[in-house]
Formats: sequence, C-alpha cells, structure tokens
Amino acid sequence: MYKRMDSFTALSPVPVVMVSCAGEKDGEIFDNIITIAWAGTVASEPPAVSISIRKSRLSHELITKSGEFVINLVSEENCKDADWCGVKSGRDFDKFKELGLEKVPVHNLEKAKGIKGCPVHIGCKVKSVTDLGSHDMFVAEIVSVAAAEELFDTEEKLRLDKAKLVAYCHGEYLALGDVLGFFGYSVAAPKVLSRRMDKAKMKK
Amino acid sequence: MYKRMDSFTALSPVPVVMVSCAGEKDGEIFDNIITIAWAGTVASEPPAVSISIRKSRLSHELITKSGEFVINLVSEENCKDADWCGVKSGRDFDKFKELGLEKVPVHNLEKAKGIKGCPVHIGCKVKSVTDLGSHDMFVAEIVSVAAAEELFDTEEKLRLDKAKLVAYCHGEYLALGDVLGFFGYSVAAPKVLSRRMDKAKMKK
Repeated sequence: MYKRMDSFTALSPVPVVMVSCAGEKDGEIFDNIITIAWAGTVASEPPAVSISIRKSRLSHELITKSGEFVINLVSEENCKDADWCGVKSGRDFDKFKELGLEKVPVHNLEKAKGIKGCPVHIGCKVKSVTDLGSHDMFVAEIVSVAAAEELFDTEEKLRLDKAKLVAYCHGEYLALGDVLGFFGYSVAAPKVLSRRMDKAKMKK
Repeated sequence: MYKRMDSFTALSPVPVVMVSCAGEKDGEIFDNIITIAWAGTVASEPPAVSISIRKSRLSHELITKSGEFVINLVSEENCKDADWCGVKSGRDFDKFKELGLEKVPVHNLEKAKGIKGCPVHIGCKVKSVTDLGSHDMFVAEIVSVAAAEELFDTEEKLRLDKAKLVAYCHGEYLALGDVLGFFGYSVAAPKVLSRRMDKAKMKK
C-alpha cells in the first residue's frame, strides 16, 4: 500500500556538485562557489545540463552576467567543503580563500575556474534561463570536461568509480556502494555478464 | 593535474527512475514504462522536475499527448526491471505485462499509473517541452507524492534511506552507501552533529 504525502522534491538520489563561477563584485573579479543538488543531465548531443539556483544567491547574479560556470563533481573528500559552500554565502565569504582551495583554468571558459581537488571539472555555457518560481533553471551546454589524472586506468579510460563520488538523498550526503549492474545487463549474454560483473567486483 | 577529454554527459551520480505514462496506441489505452537517467529536480516551490527523452521513443509521444507521467523511484529490487525498460521499446512489448508489474492509481493524474513495487511514485504534469537536440526536455510540476507504507517510521516520517535507492554513474547502476553527513553538518554544533550522525549509523 502507498501513503499519500504533500508534494515535495522527492526525486532521489540526486547529484551534489560544487558550481564555481566568477564575475565582478565590489569592482573586483570575484570567484564564488555554490553547492547545488538541483542539477541534472538534460541532453546527450550536444551534452547539456541544467542547474537551478535561487534568485537571491550571489552565484545567480554572477552566472547570469558571465553566462558560464563549472560543475565540480564532489568526492567524499570534498563533501564537508561542499556542505559549507551550500550553507554560506559568497556575499560574506571568499569561499576559495576560507577553504584554502586553488583555482584551475577550464578549457573553453573565460572567467569561471575549476576547484583543484574535485575529481572532474565540467565547463558549461548557459543557453537559456527559465523562471520556475523559487528557482531559475539554467540550461547549459557542456563545452569541456577534464578529470584528475589519477582517475584514468592504464588504457587511458576514465574510471569514475575511483572518484568516490557523493549522492544527495532527502537531506543527506551518501557514499556510493556496490555495483548492481551495467547499462544493458538485463539482456546481456551470460559470458558478457560474468566478465563485466567480475570486473566490477575487482574495482573494489 | 587534470586531463582534458572530449565533452560528454559527465555529471555523476545521477538518478535512475522508471517513468510510467499512458495514452492511445493502436486504438487502445496503453501503459508504458521508460527508464531515464536524464532527470533532475529543477525547483522547490512549486516542486518541479525535468526528464529528457529522445524524440523517437514511444514514451515521448505518449507524454507529449497526455501531458503527464509518473516518476517511479528505483530500489535495488527494481534495478533489473529498470534496466530492461531502458533497453526495450514499448512499441515491441507491453512492459507491465512482460515484467508482471501491477498498476497503482496516482493522485491528481488522469492517465498515468504508478508501478507497484517501486518505493515512491511522483505524479508529474508537464509545463513545458524544450528541444535540446538529441533529447526533448520535459519540465513538469510535481502534483502528488506517495510512498510505500513500510518506508514510514513510527513517527510517520518518510525514511527514504530504507528504500535502497539506486544511482547511475558512467554506465553503471550503484547501490547507495554510508551516510557522510546531513545538510548543514559542516556548521552544526558538536551536540547536533553527534546526535544526528549516531542516528545515521543506527539506520544501518
């Protein structure tokens, strides 16, 4: 049996990412970080994402003006910093400075910088902004991706499973657990299934 | 050091959900299921989501006509069915029938039904459709949420951590792991921190 509840943002798990952006603040170039769980992939070709930001946030203003931002994937090591960047405002703190974070240039972006220590930097250029009430939704094209060197295997393949990424679920940050399957595993030939699932176990 | 890659849909982890929808097919009412990882929360008030679907998919046609769909959250038990619904087409299969799944009415929707056995049903009404190339993005308002009875604790609070939800990351389905923290934990008073993190451990 199912129990009806008041409508709320029940989609779970969702990503949790640190979005970095840059622009003028008090007459100087300022780099900010905002942590966002209202993010998603919205298309494959061209690769595109959406992030939603409350209109009151400094990052809303910076991204609206610059038209660009970086999605920094969050690992378990970045989790506490991510939480802090979600709670505090760039109007009160220079978050890079407070957290001792270094900036990394991002290909195809002019202003926004990646956060050193985050496993993956996704460079994004805004295509549209839509007012959805509490939040504005920024749809952006992915114009570059860079991943930390140590995440590549000997065949130069990106191994995101090594990144120890974090998911967000109903107010909590969660580590990722066991591999349950791969896309297409329900119809895979037994040979493929056992080879790939063995490989998944070997990753641990 | 970071290594540059070709642009791709690198946002991770993302949700993986079974989206159910209904409409006319061959002169009869037909219920379909499509599995989607290109989904995200886009606003809090009113609560809203986006899902992106390739134009060629049957569900694209059904949702475009009906203007509604259900997001069924996916648990570890639903994972193989979810994979199958992502690989197969409703043009070839009655997926409810093939998988032996039952339909559950969803509050505030007229046509689309929830999937019995999925932990949470999120009723969604389409507000806009945007062509983003490979995919059309459907932005929808959440008009109802219902969760399986066994997910509520003795205080009638939804405990999504009991749902064993699944995340999608770079082609793989992953279980969720340890609780790393809660929203605001980086600034929580020591007392609050120890109480809430102990509670998180107790959930296991």
